[in-house]
Amino acid sequence: MTNVSRRGMLGFAGGGAALGAAGFAGGWGASHAAADEKPSPGERTYDFFGEHQAGIVTPAQDRLYFATFDVTATTRDELESLLRAWSLAAERMMRGETASDEATAYDAPPADTGEAEDLPPSGLTITFGFGPTLFRDEKGKDRFGLADKQPKELRELPHFPADKLDPRRSGGDIAVQACADDPQVAVHAIRNLSRIAFGLAAIRWAQLGFGRTSSTSTSQATPRNLFGFKDGTANIKAESRDVVDDHVWVGRGDDPKADWMTGGSYLVARRITMHLETWDRSSLREQEAIIGRDRPEGAPLSGGKEFDEPKFDVKGRGGEPLIAKNSHVFLAHPKNNGGAQMLRRGYNFTDGNDALGRLDAGLFFLAYVRRPSRQYIPMQMRMSREDALMEYLKHTGSGLFAVPPGVPKGGFVGQQLFTS
Amino acid sequence: MTNVSRRGMLGFAGGGAALGAAGFAGGWGASHAAADEKPSPGERTYDFFGEHQAGIVTPAQDRLYFATFDVTATTRDELESLLRAWSLAAERMMRGETASDEATAYDAPPADTGEAEDLPPSGLTITFGFGPTLFRDEKGKDRFGLADKQPKELRELPHFPADKLDPRRSGGDIAVQACADDPQVAVHAIRNLSRIAFGLAAIRWAQLGFGRTSSTSTSQATPRNLFGFKDGTANIKAESRDVVDDHVWVGRGDDPKADWMTGGSYLVARRITMHLETWDRSSLREQEAIIGRDRPEGAPLSGGKEFDEPKFDVKGRGGEPLIAKNSHVFLAHPKNNGGAQMLRRGYNFTDGNDALGRLDAGLFFLAYVRRPSRQYIPMQMRMSREDALMEYLKHTGSGLFAVPPGVPKGGFVGQQLFTS
Ligand code: HEM
Ligand code: HEM
Repeated sequence: MTNVSRRGMLGFAGGGAALGAAGFAGGWGASHAAADEKPSPGERTYDFFGEHQAGIVTPAQDRLYFATFDVTATTRDELESLLRAWSLAAERMMRGETASDEATAYDAPPADTGEAEDLPPSGLTITFGFGPTLFRDEKGKDRFGLADKQPKELRELPHFPADKLDPRRSGGDIAVQACADDPQVAVHAIRNLSRIAFGLAAIRWAQLGFGRTSSTSTSQATPRNLFGFKDGTANIKAESRDVVDDHVWVGRGDDPKADWMTGGSYLVARRITMHLETWDRSSLREQEAIIGRDRPEGAPLSGGKEFDEPKFDVKGRGGEPLIAKNSHVFLAHPKNNGGAQMLRRGYNFTDGNDALGRLDAGLFFLAYVRRPSRQYIPMQMRMSREDALMEYLKHTGSGLFAVPPGVPKGGFVGQQLFTS
Repeated sequence: MTNVSRRGMLGFAGGGAALGAAGFAGGWGASHAAADEKPSPGERTYDFFGEHQAGIVTPAQDRLYFATFDVTATTRDELESLLRAWSLAAERMMRGETASDEATAYDAPPADTGEAEDLPPSGLTITFGFGPTLFRDEKGKDRFGLADKQPKELRELPHFPADKLDPRRSGGDIAVQACADDPQVAVHAIRNLSRIAFGLAAIRWAQLGFGRTSSTSTSQATPRNLFGFKDGTANIKAESRDVVDDHVWVGRGDDPKADWMTGGSYLVARRITMHLETWDRSSLREQEAIIGRDRPEGAPLSGGKEFDEPKFDVKGRGGEPLIAKNSHVFLAHPKNNGGAQMLRRGYNFTDGNDALGRLDAGLFFLAYVRRPSRQYIPMQMRMSREDALMEYLKHTGSGLFAVPPGVPKGGFVGQQLFTS
């Protein structure tokens, strides 16, 4: 009953499949082979199997549900069986199927929780990453006999000036990023993975992201963050294969002891609360000066249009550079970071309000990089010290995860770690 | 700059306009008059002005952002000016415009926060309601000289057995329900209203709802709640005009002292946490018995299809009724409630997880009724005592609001209260 194909029920789709920007990198379900039938965007599917995990260079979907898990399993076999079970379910759900192919006995709990039953696949991707604590516990103990394969790049992030991290929104042994154009599909995915993990892993923290704040493909329009600015303009785009290879994917030989990471990436997650009320009371001039781009179009303050390169040497009246040295774009631009770039894939969030009636909202920053130590860490260190934007931000959650490469057909996520 | 029409920028829409079910009750923007141009669902708009407020019988949009405000204004004039300013902004935003028509000086804060700048109207509705505390404070003091017009139906809800209300998610002087097919549009609306209220009112609590759990129109498919069941099947549908008139709209003469409520309604808001993990471990048989409908189709357990009437006298083997007397549908059905019906308009929510790794998720129950004392209160009292579903629920937030009638062209919301 519950293993009925969700795809088979699409005629009743009602939860609101979201329309993305034009142009899809993903494949279409076989049911749409007929040339005269125009597929709805909700029908978009991405492959679970492949060279790299989906959900990284995949054009950023509209909605996110993200969770990290604490592994309670104690043996390597148990951990492996968790990853196998998760892979089976993730592969099915990305096809728009229920989480399990088990038939449900009437006197047993349903094999799928059901809330996505009538919804199309909605471009769901499920991306897994391993935290440093999966390899060694706080005391440095090798938990699963994997410690000698812990990547050198996978260390706890350093404390950055002005960090106000909430331990209940930080860390975790395994991170799971579920992105989809319908939030119910993303929530359903995490919930069913959590259910499958029963006895082996439990959710540590979870975050809903209601709107994407980046474009990761030239086919997508640039969305806006909660400061009202376009976000994702100068992001790495999937179409720039060379840039992706240089800055996103771990290369062979990057880390000889952790060769299993070849084709993988590192995911930095930062929950950044934005002081919206204070921001909203600053002038447009000040806001633009802080970002280094104009608000209407996202064009660099040095002139031109959205996608023109910022020119840091152009000066205005008084001889001051048009893009200030403490602006976000100045401090984040590759020219001022030894060429470092990152693939940003963040989401706007809101979790109600704080005791003072201020919205508890901000940017759930997600970025994929090849080498956190050269890309994210130095940039964040400098930003936390110098970026004029920091006055309006508070980093309240954090995590760093080693995202294994893609899964060979029929395999399971992270298998390279177990077999190498 | 910031008073640029959002509609004018639609070519760049990127945040993901959501596709609803087929059939719209709303109007289309004039820009779509051309017959050969097929409007995208994101273009849907609803009128702010009209006999009733929008957002009640409007086909339930996919996403919700809901907030209640504590009024800090101290005079009736200030309160009236807040409602005027809110009405101007709400009317604009529902048309897909920015919150304000003021031009932004470069050295002043932008008149709109900007994050919906490139997004289409997305079917936004903004619905206002007044809490009992707007009329009298805890000590019974008449706050704004309006106490003699407090409707008799607008009292604090009684304590229901098993209530575990969080005061930080309950009450409020004014409630604002923003529904849209794009959550960013709904969040933008509340944020800008909050900004406009600066010094006069502040957000008390806020709730994001990521997926609708009801259909309020026969044009919509029935969505599912987080227990995996179809929700909204037997809901009041906008097309049943007589039922709506009898059960939703306050009629002339209902409350002679509060005649200003004619054409309005009462909004019950309940944040209901659902124990998903426990539910997920119960058998399909048990789940269906608790609801009184089957899971795959939402058909009554007494037989037939989704939209067939439940038959409470049909018995199975052993002589037990097929729809149990402690099932949700039995206890909620009008036949067993003296004919009482309500217009449900709830949303699934998730706010991360609790300290034990369980998802903090559930149903943000919203219902519109003509007479809470005869429709909602007795039903909830009985459910809280007898409903088998209660074992899996915890009511964690609550509010009752008098939703004034619609706004005459050029007027402001609630004006009937001030002029009558
Ligand atoms: C809430 C916090 C943040 C906000 C509101 C924000 C906003 C923006 C905006 C508006 C842009 C310009 C448009 C674009 O190219 O995407 C931008 C660019 C960028 N941001 Fe952020 N950002 C935030 C945090 C961060 C963090 C934590 C990092 C990394 C440490 C980062 C790295 C970058 C990079 C690399 C660029 C592109 C710079 C360029 O190449 O021109 N941002 N950000
Ligand atoms: C998390 C809590 C709740 C869940 C999961 C839930 C679920 C459901 C489901 C699955 C149905 C059957 C399908 C339908 O007709 O919509 C239903 C019907 C209904 N529910 Fe609930 N419900 C909840 C809370 C409430 C509350 C608090 C009330 C009001 C006090 C309520 C009133 C109704 C009514 C009036 C019906 C229609 C009954 C009929 O006419 O057959 N529900 N609910």
